Amino acid sequence: MAAELTREAAAARDAADPLASFRERFVNRDPERIYLDGNSLGRLPVATRDRLRDLVEQWGERLVTGWPEWIDAPTRAGDALAADVLGARAGEVVVSDSTTVNLYKLCSAALDAYRLSAQRVLVTDRGNFPTDRYVLEGLAEQRGLELRLLDSDPLDGPQAAELEPALHDGAVALVVLSHVAYRSGALADLKGITDLVRRYDAHVVWDLSHSAGALPVGLRDAGVELAAGCTYKYLNAGPGAPAFLYVAEDVQPRLSSPIWGWFGQRDQFAMDRSYDPVDGVGRFLAGTPPVLELAAVEEGVRITAEAGIDRIRAKSVELCDLIVDLHDAWLAPLGFELGSPRDGARRGSHVALRHDEAWPICRALIERAAVVPDFRGPDSIRLGVAPLYTGFADVWDALDRLRRLVERGEQREVDATRSRVT
Amino acid sequence: MAAELTREAAAARDAADPLASFRERFVNRDPERIYLDGNSLGRLPVATRDRLRDLVEQWGERLVTGWPEWIDAPTRAGDALAADVLGARAGEVVVSDSTTVNLYKLCSAALDAYRLSAQRVLVTDRGNFPTDRYVLEGLAEQRGLELRLLDSDPLDGPQAAELEPALHDGAVALVVLSHVAYRSGALADLKGITDLVRRYDAHVVWDLSHSAGALPVGLRDAGVELAAGCTYKYLNAGPGAPAFLYVAEDVQPRLSSPIWGWFGQRDQFAMDRSYDPVDGVGRFLAGTPPVLELAAVEEGVRITAEAGIDRIRAKSVELCDLIVDLHDAWLAPLGFELGSPRDGARRGSHVALRHDEAWPICRALIERAAVVPDFRGPDSIRLGVAPLYTGFADVWDALDRLRRLVERGEQREVDATRSRVT
Repeated sequence: MAAELTREAAAARDAADPLASFRERFVNRDPERIYLDGNSLGRLPVATRDRLRDLVEQWGERLVTGWPEWIDAPTRAGDALAADVLGARAGEVVVSDSTTVNLYKLCSAALDAYRLSAQRVLVTDRGNFPTDRYVLEGLAEQRGLELRLLDSDPLDGPQAAELEPALHDGAVALVVLSHVAYRSGALADLKGITDLVRRYDAHVVWDLSHSAGALPVGLRDAGVELAAGCTYKYLNAGPGAPAFLYVAEDVQPRLSSPIWGWFGQRDQFAMDRSYDPVDGVGRFLAGTPPVLELAAVEEGVRITAEAGIDRIRAKSVELCDLIVDLHDAWLAPLGFELGSPRDGARRGSHVALRHDEAWPICRALIERAAVVPDFRGPDSIRLGVAPLYTGFADVWDALDRLRRLVERGEQREVDATRSRVT
Repeated sequence: MAAELTREAAAARDAADPLASFRERFVNRDPERIYLDGNSLGRLPVATRDRLRDLVEQWGERLVTGWPEWIDAPTRAGDALAADVLGARAGEVVVSDSTTVNLYKLCSAALDAYRLSAQRVLVTDRGNFPTDRYVLEGLAEQRGLELRLLDSDPLDGPQAAELEPALHDGAVALVVLSHVAYRSGALADLKGITDLVRRYDAHVVWDLSHSAGALPVGLRDAGVELAAGCTYKYLNAGPGAPAFLYVAEDVQPRLSSPIWGWFGQRDQFAMDRSYDPVDGVGRFLAGTPPVLELAAVEEGVRITAEAGIDRIRAKSVELCDLIVDLHDAWLAPLGFELGSPRDGARRGSHVALRHDEAWPICRALIERAAVVPDFRGPDSIRLGVAPLYTGFADVWDALDRLRRLVERGEQREVDATRSRVT
């Protein structure tokens, strides 16, 4: 084995890691377990546990008089995300509702704003995350539009070169793509695709669920108009925490949410007036926002900001490269294939390993090897790295346990009939 | 003063109250303060504080492997609400998203399902809660429909007799009304209005925000088809807790959510299929549900169920009657007017008192008298009673403090320029 693939080398990299101390900022009751599913649900920050406890007490003590402080949480969390995670400006991001609801709001708003009778086509990638496709299927049916599905190479994700032919006839109104593909981890060219689509007078809504908190998104530099994404993955805000929604400042005046609600209303408590939404992204708020879980978003963003998104990205690429190298050395001979781009610059923060027995291997890893990956059908084991709490030795140990388990055929000894939840 | 209006009489009623012990089930750090705003934000149940603490730890420990237990929370909380609070069946209610988003989903679904070319009119009450009106204003604009606003008597709320003329021309597709009016507390005739609207082949969406948890709603007995409402008022689920949505079993097959999302999908984790929603109300789920706050809904419903909604209603009427009686005896001479129905059977669980100086009186009550009501413009002080934790002596003391404060003119000594939040 090459010297750099020894456990000692991995431990040495942890010792030299400038982010190593962030590991202590997360609750970890079972240090033996290696958690490689932060791309699905991030760990609990200690600060978030404390903040949630305080906030529950605050509800109990302050009751309704707490609202003057709570009411700005969607924009406060949004501004922090904009500055520290998304490369956007204050006033361009709010946090509330789910990713699905936010994608629906943005797609509807874009279709309403840019009513172009000849542009009757919606586009996404067949491999895009299901809820993104479903939102578009629904809008296509409700509005009598056509939905075109790109058949991108799953390893590469959607490419400008594949998208361009779909745009040629000038019929496309809206494109929805994921910045990082949920299965392969392929990283799309945010700026290249945005520019291309705009050249054809169409619009893109980006789903940032698998990139926010894992890499510098740079929305403003890429000229992105519309985006939404999740906070419970790399932003560690907890199960079902509210999602974010971004609308670039220059397109805000043209767009309004399809869901007209009182939290988007100017002078909200002058209750007798007709709907008159605030200027800016706040008009995309609808109902009363989830106060407890917004505090968890704020804490998650705070830790990310403190570590610095560039340092997070640098470590993420190194961790994923180590997975690829160990795959080549140990796993390829056992029937595994890489299900992610080999080039770190074209990959998000997880690596998919394909294997015919992927599902029972996943079960066996969780039940017998104290390694938590996740499974995505039909044949992918996703190994996600979260640089705030994943170390190089964690990756080494996880892959070591994986190869030993498969060498012994332990995946044939587990009950793999359990339902596949998450 | 009549004997029954003495403080001794109020204390005696507390001593005989079968719900008295529920008071201890809520966190109360400041027993001197009298909280009469549970109609806006309910108190924190002790069980909820503990459950949230456990659930945060569960996130930290179980991480993604917690999902098999969490994933059913929207239907689990919905079934409990259906059985114990709403008078509906299992499978007719889910909890997720905000009241605004749920109203939007239901109104859109109804308009899509019942496309009747001649029925181009939406109806609500001018005095309905703003977000209900805004949702309809938006749908009217987006779909080229007409919105008619009823000018109901604010004291009585919308009546069948007022609604009927609006229905005569057969042009109404959809009516949205609140079961209990947010300002006056007027209780609408759920069954009478539902029957009336159905006779004209139109449909009603009921907003139950101010009735759920305060009185027996009886959705099934009233033949209600569609409803939504809030859990952070009388159901004590915390600031911004998710709302519920009800679709009667017999209309479920005709209706689908405008927001097609992965939590409404049959076999959710078979991710390559096109959208194919589950049968039943679950198809109205969209994105990942808020796990922490769903647990708070479950706890809130549990306490309500234990106390029994009929006992809660009986005490609520008595508490509100006491407010009315004390108003007549003490406050009417000070320039107050009753802003709610005098008849308990036509009222929800709050009483509005109107006064020219309502806003500064509210501020003074909070700042100087340790009484927390709330204000609704232009001139109403709302006093909400939550029978699980509001006692008769609380009401007596609050009204006593209120009359003394106004007698001394203390409302003229506070800074009443503060912004009106909630």
